[in-house]
Amino acid sequence: MTTKQIVLAARPKGTPTLDNFKFQQIELSELKLGEVLLQGLYYSVDPYMRGRMNEGKSYIPPFQIDQVIQGGVIAEVKESKSDIFIKGDIVTGMLPWSEQFIAEEKTIKKIDTTIAPPGYYLSVLGMPGLTAYFGLMHICKPKAGETVVVSGAAGAVGVVVGQIAKLNGCRVVGIAGSDEKIKLLKDEFGFDEAINYKTTDNIKKAIAAACPNGVDIYFDNVGGDISDAVIANINFHARIALCGQISLYNSSEIPVGPRLQPMLLTRSVLMQGFIISNYHLLFSEGIQHLAQWIKEGKIKFTETIVHGFDQLPVALLGLFKGENTGKMIVKA
Amino acid sequence: MTTKQIVLAARPKGTPTLDNFKFQQIELSELKLGEVLLQGLYYSVDPYMRGRMNEGKSYIPPFQIDQVIQGGVIAEVKESKSDIFIKGDIVTGMLPWSEQFIAEEKTIKKIDTTIAPPGYYLSVLGMPGLTAYFGLMHICKPKAGETVVVSGAAGAVGVVVGQIAKLNGCRVVGIAGSDEKIKLLKDEFGFDEAINYKTTDNIKKAIAAACPNGVDIYFDNVGGDISDAVIANINFHARIALCGQISLYNSSEIPVGPRLQPMLLTRSVLMQGFIISNYHLLFSEGIQHLAQWIKEGKIKFTETIVHGFDQLPVALLGLFKGENTGKMIVKA
Repeated sequence: MTTKQIVLAARPKGTPTLDNFKFQQIELSELKLGEVLLQGLYYSVDPYMRGRMNEGKSYIPPFQIDQVIQGGVIAEVKESKSDIFIKGDIVTGMLPWSEQFIAEEKTIKKIDTTIAPPGYYLSVLGMPGLTAYFGLMHICKPKAGETVVVSGAAGAVGVVVGQIAKLNGCRVVGIAGSDEKIKLLKDEFGFDEAINYKTTDNIKKAIAAACPNGVDIYFDNVGGDISDAVIANINFHARIALCGQISLYNSSEIPVGPRLQPMLLTRSVLMQGFIISNYHLLFSEGIQHLAQWIKEGKIKFTETIVHGFDQLPVALLGLFKGENTGKMIVKA
Repeated sequence: MTTKQIVLAARPKGTPTLDNFKFQQIELSELKLGEVLLQGLYYSVDPYMRGRMNEGKSYIPPFQIDQVIQGGVIAEVKESKSDIFIKGDIVTGMLPWSEQFIAEEKTIKKIDTTIAPPGYYLSVLGMPGLTAYFGLMHICKPKAGETVVVSGAAGAVGVVVGQIAKLNGCRVVGIAGSDEKIKLLKDEFGFDEAINYKTTDNIKKAIAAACPNGVDIYFDNVGGDISDAVIANINFHARIALCGQISLYNSSEIPVGPRLQPMLLTRSVLMQGFIISNYHLLFSEGIQHLAQWIKEGKIKFTETIVHGFDQLPVALLGLFKGENTGKMIVKA
């Protein structure tokens, strides 16, 4: 039986293009004991995947040329030689960008689609939701009355950060890149203020106006000039969680900017880089809180769903143009 | 009775000069109840004082034009209208750059010169020693076998950081600006390696060579290019204490450099700015440890003593030329 998969054709220099991807047909081998045949239903595209397209050491190994791309996937079991899974089970894992594929039982886990729609397991109950939870609660430690600024606020992580911060009694200010996103952040997700950085002349002044008591917590998804403007308004004893730097991911030279250390020093600021796997021993704590908040309607969520397996590369590139609101998912 | 004092004549632009200071004679008023007349013995000059010469909000208020400079001082009680102090007591506090001066009893405290020479209370048992202790032990949390890099290593804070790190079983690498300092760090203070940044072509490579297992802890006293080179060698889960940025204090424009956040993010690094007053509730813990280590000969210390009250401005300016090894003190 053959299936279609997407491989890395070439490493991008700067912003990736469709030429960096290649579709190919492959022959699936016979199922062995402990394996299942899976049909991909939903595929996650995430900013961190840009890093895996580069050569070189990072926190996860790079994708290899002519090898299939991997990411978060929700799939349905079509055939099983596993004692754990039966035909019809819905599972998730770090899986290949392939229409069908074989997986070992230990690389996947079953999800309960009665709690939430399957896509949520790639988003608010998956990596982005946990990233928001641990970055905010374990690094930034919000206190009632503090001011929290979130960049990339309309992204999959950002909307959850803002809502958890509100649940903790904070004033929440989001930064995003379209009037539609700004409206959504305020009307739908309960942000106190939101700033469209694309239509704001002086972002530093806009942040100062939106944060009359300064910035106590900055949850940074974007880096670059936007972060400089937030940090210019930072308070004594502030906490900055470095979650993403999407504005810089496509730089082919080392980005340059104002040196932060004098400001961090004189204001006793904490800046902590993190990746979600640092907290893997605590995942159950995070999932428990998030699931409860979703059940109680205290956390809302939004997805941008792109249709068609063949659109996966287009959807990934769209992240870098800000085409998503909330989690970007491809439905096969 | 008149005495001589040193006031801020003008705010410096860039590197301060002697023109920024002015000597003047003032008349001392009558001693009131609860006050003492003090004769200055030792005056501390410290990098942070540069910040107080600028206008604008920082963690301590700026010096005012035509007002006396203040700093750490050891002084002898010459007359007392206090129930706490008697003539001959040796005291310390944040006190004026004045040959003699009147102080309220609540602004000073007595020191025990049988434990250590008076100058030590401006250094290893004072602000610099406590800064080293809390920055290393409370922010960086060294573990045996880790590699610790200290910049400004031959300064008052740096030599103590290195020695406490050695007491914690770490490999310690110092960065300083003369061969004399390098020799002292290795021969006298037990650093495993020391790098003279002034005679090293490629500081990043030199750090890599001195730290074959990478850098787990960076205690930063200097900032700028040296810090960039250390951070280029930083390990996953490293901790960076921002203690000083002396290389940047005299910049009149906002200094620019490579953006650090992508590196801090992908390597899950913590960066924490701090000032010693954040830890004031824990000072007794720090002093207890430091005094014990000094008594046991486990921590050595060195001072650069400049003679003559009139040399105070010259000594302060000397800090920015690296003229000190260990704590710079002016003896009246």
